[in-house]
Amino acid sequence: MEALVSRIKRDGTVLGDDILKVDSFLTHQVDPKLMRQIGQTFAQKFADSGITKVVTIEASGNVPAAYVAEELDVPMIFAKKAKNVTMNDELLTAEVYSFTKKITSTVQISRKFLSENDKVLIIDDFLANGQAALGLINILKEAGAQIAGVGIVIEKSFQTGRALVEETGIPVVSLARIAGFDQGQVIFAEADL
Amino acid sequence: MEALVSRIKRDGTVLGDDILKVDSFLTHQVDPKLMRQIGQTFAQKFADSGITKVVTIEASGNVPAAYVAEELDVPMIFAKKAKNVTMNDELLTAEVYSFTKKITSTVQISRKFLSENDKVLIIDDFLANGQAALGLINILKEAGAQIAGVGIVIEKSFQTGRALVEETGIPVVSLARIAGFDQGQVIFAEADL
Repeated sequence: MEALVSRIKRDGTVLGDDILKVDSFLTHQVDPKLMRQIGQTFAQKFADSGITKVVTIEASGNVPAAYVAEELDVPMIFAKKAKNVTMNDELLTAEVYSFTKKITSTVQISRKFLSENDKVLIIDDFLANGQAALGLINILKEAGAQIAGVGIVIEKSFQTGRALVEETGIPVVSLARIAGFDQGQVIFAEADL
Repeated sequence: MEALVSRIKRDGTVLGDDILKVDSFLTHQVDPKLMRQIGQTFAQKFADSGITKVVTIEASGNVPAAYVAEELDVPMIFAKKAKNVTMNDELLTAEVYSFTKKITSTVQISRKFLSENDKVLIIDDFLANGQAALGLINILKEAGAQIAGVGIVIEKSFQTGRALVEETGIPVVSLARIAGFDQGQVIFAEADL
């Protein structure tokens, strides 16, 4: 997605060897117009896939996922990382290690929102080590739902995530793919969309 | 906002004495069409207020805030609750006790995204004890930003939040206001919009 690649080039910052910071338009401050373009791009790709739900993990995935869901005219579900007093239903859970937070959390979705009649599009902001995506895949399989694909805004192609997801038989579709970093510059691989 | 009030009546669940669970359309599963109506409603109210940023706290506030920001054509910022390796800038922080999570977290916004030139609209999903709103107000004041108002999707008017925010001189605008619960039914007060 050209608008996204340009934005990364303009506003992204490389930290160390393996972190891309995009806090000015995706992960802390959010550009809603860019989110709408992201929503439209994924929705066009999956328009004929029979998607019934869009699923993400809180919190940076919430806005991209909502825009995709709106374009597809389906609900969005964000998996939650911490228990609160309102989550008193039967929960589907998975342990997920966060690459940027360096901690493991239990992500959870209330079972009542998913069934074997669902065909789900997973959307997330980043794909790095794949743990978040795999956690969601496990939750969705436990619910009996079909998974149409994993839509990723920014994929770090030099990490294991894409391969791990594809091993499960689920396609990955990424709007920007990063082959690596070189002296603070982002080296892009060819994106899927 | 009539569509929101109807939705609460249809899908909201009262837990105990003081919790309203709206997990099927706002706080876990999200209805993007309703979020768009929420965005339009707040944006109409603040269309002439010179808003430069919409600010919320992750995660249930993210989608409503993004839709408001999109309608106002400004960026959205979501305050973050947990440190991650990309947050290496100067941070503005506040301690916030969550009514539903029953824990205190440090919420943080990177200082670089706010200045004395900003006029901010705070948006959040719930107003209960007011701690989240007050935390954001303190962060924004520290940044030197003006605050146009606090826009709330669901206000629990029988709790102290609204009064605490109004004491700071900042107006509260709520789309649904709950006077209380009676035998599992929601009793509504008149909303602001």
